[in-house]
Amino acid sequence: MKAIAFTVENIPLIGPGDDIGRLITERAKLENHDIIAISSTVVSKSESRILSLNDVSVTGRARIIAKKNGNDPRFVQAVLNESSEILIESPFLLVHTKNGSICVNAGIDRSNVDGIDNILLLPEAPDESAKRIKDSIFELTGKKVSVIITDTNGRAFRIGQTGAAIGIAGIRSTKDWRGTKDLFGRVLEVKNEAIVDEIAGFANILMGEGDGGTPIIIIRGLNLYNEPCSIKELYRPGKEDVIRRALISRSV
Amino acid sequence: MKAIAFTVENIPLIGPGDDIGRLITERAKLENHDIIAISSTVVSKSESRILSLNDVSVTGRARIIAKKNGNDPRFVQAVLNESSEILIESPFLLVHTKNGSICVNAGIDRSNVDGIDNILLLPEAPDESAKRIKDSIFELTGKKVSVIITDTNGRAFRIGQTGAAIGIAGIRSTKDWRGTKDLFGRVLEVKNEAIVDEIAGFANILMGEGDGGTPIIIIRGLNLYNEPCSIKELYRPGKEDVIRRALISRSV
Repeated sequence: MKAIAFTVENIPLIGPGDDIGRLITERAKLENHDIIAISSTVVSKSESRILSLNDVSVTGRARIIAKKNGNDPRFVQAVLNESSEILIESPFLLVHTKNGSICVNAGIDRSNVDGIDNILLLPEAPDESAKRIKDSIFELTGKKVSVIITDTNGRAFRIGQTGAAIGIAGIRSTKDWRGTKDLFGRVLEVKNEAIVDEIAGFANILMGEGDGGTPIIIIRGLNLYNEPCSIKELYRPGKEDVIRRALISRSV
Repeated sequence: MKAIAFTVENIPLIGPGDDIGRLITERAKLENHDIIAISSTVVSKSESRILSLNDVSVTGRARIIAKKNGNDPRFVQAVLNESSEILIESPFLLVHTKNGSICVNAGIDRSNVDGIDNILLLPEAPDESAKRIKDSIFELTGKKVSVIITDTNGRAFRIGQTGAAIGIAGIRSTKDWRGTKDLFGRVLEVKNEAIVDEIAGFANILMGEGDGGTPIIIIRGLNLYNEPCSIKELYRPGKEDVIRRALISRSV
C-alpha cells in the first residue's frame, strides 16, 4: 500500500466569498477519492468569520477569567460566546464549542489574520463547509473527493499540538476494526480508528505554519471515500466521558 | 512539498531476537532521512515481551479493580505491574506507565499474540529500541534514518484511537514554530507541533489491523532527521498537567 501527500501551491490569500473548491481545481489535477485537507483558517476567511475585538461586549465573567489568565477580556468574551460549556477556566480556557468539539480558546486564532484587533473564529458549521467544497469540486471536475477541514489542537497528557479534523465530507470519521480477526484468528474487540484525525495530523506537517504555510494538502492512495458522514460521530457524549466529568466536578 | 508513505511488504511473523533493522533492509531500498514507523507489537515480540497470565501473582487491589471493570484479575495485575500511577481505575484503567506515557491498560495488547493466555507488554525502553533499529540500519546500509515506534491510543473527549509515538530515534518529538512569523508579520506564540504523533497516526492507517496488517511503514520526503532526541520530551510533567491533576484529585 502506498499513499502520497502533497501541497497545493500558489493558493492566494483567501477572502470573503472565495470559492475554495474552485481555487483547488485551478491548481491541482484531482482524481476520484483524493482526500483534501484544508486548514480551517482559510475556510473561516472565505466565510467572513473574522471578528474585531472592538465589537465584543465584555461581561463580568470574561473580566474575571481574563484577569486570572492574563488575557485580553475581549478575547475571553469571544471564546465564551463560541462555547456551550467551560471545562477548564484557568490557567487556560478549555471549552466545549457550540459545534461540539472540545478545544482551547474555542479554536479562535489570532495569528495569520490581518488587523491587530481582529480574530478568526472557526467555521460556523464545519461539516457543511466541507460538503460545500466537496460539491463545488464535483461540479467543476466530476471527481468524488473527500474533504477534511483541520484545526490544530493540544491534547491531554502530552506536550504539543497535532492536527485534528473539525469538519468532514466524503469520508467516515473512523474506521471500525471491531469484529475483524487478528493474526491468530481472535476477534478484535476495541479498535475504532479515528482516521480523519490521523490524516489531519499528517496534513498538518505538510501545511507548515507561519508565513511559509500552505493551507491545502491532497492525500492520494488511501481508499476511504464514503458518505454520508459527520464529524459529530467523533465527539464523545458528555456522560460517557470520564475525563470531562472529572474536570466539571472539581471546584474551579 | 510532497511526501510518500508505503508499507514494507512480506515482513514475517516476528519472534524473540529478530533483528528488525535487518528485516527492513532486506525488503526495502532505504534512503537517507527516511522515517520508519514500526508498530510496537513487532518490537515487543522481538524483545520477548510476551507474558503468560498464568505467571502473574494477583494482589487484592487487582481483584477489586477487575471485579469493578469486568476484567481478568491477572490482566489487571499485569497492568498495575507496568504502571507507576493510576489516573482512572474504572470503568477502564488509565495509567501512567513506568516509561512515562499515559495510556489505557499500560498499552498491554491481547490481540495478535499467539497463545490464549499470553499478553504482549510494550517495549521496556522504547527510545532504546528505536535507536537499536536505527543503528542496525545504519550499519547495514550507511543510511541515516529516523525510527518511530508506534502504539494506538485513545484520547480525551474524542471517540476512537489514533497512532501515537512511544519511542523515537533520529527525529525530534516536536517541531517548534514559536518565534517564527505569521502571514502578517506577527510572532507565533503557541505552536509546538507534535510531529512524531502526527506521523505515527498516518502510519497507523497504512499499517491496518488484524490479520491483514503490515507493521512497518516508510515515510519519505519530510525533512525531519535530527538527533539527539527522546520521546520523553513529549510527556507533560504531572504538576503542569491540569487534566491529570483533576483526575487524581477526584474521589475514585
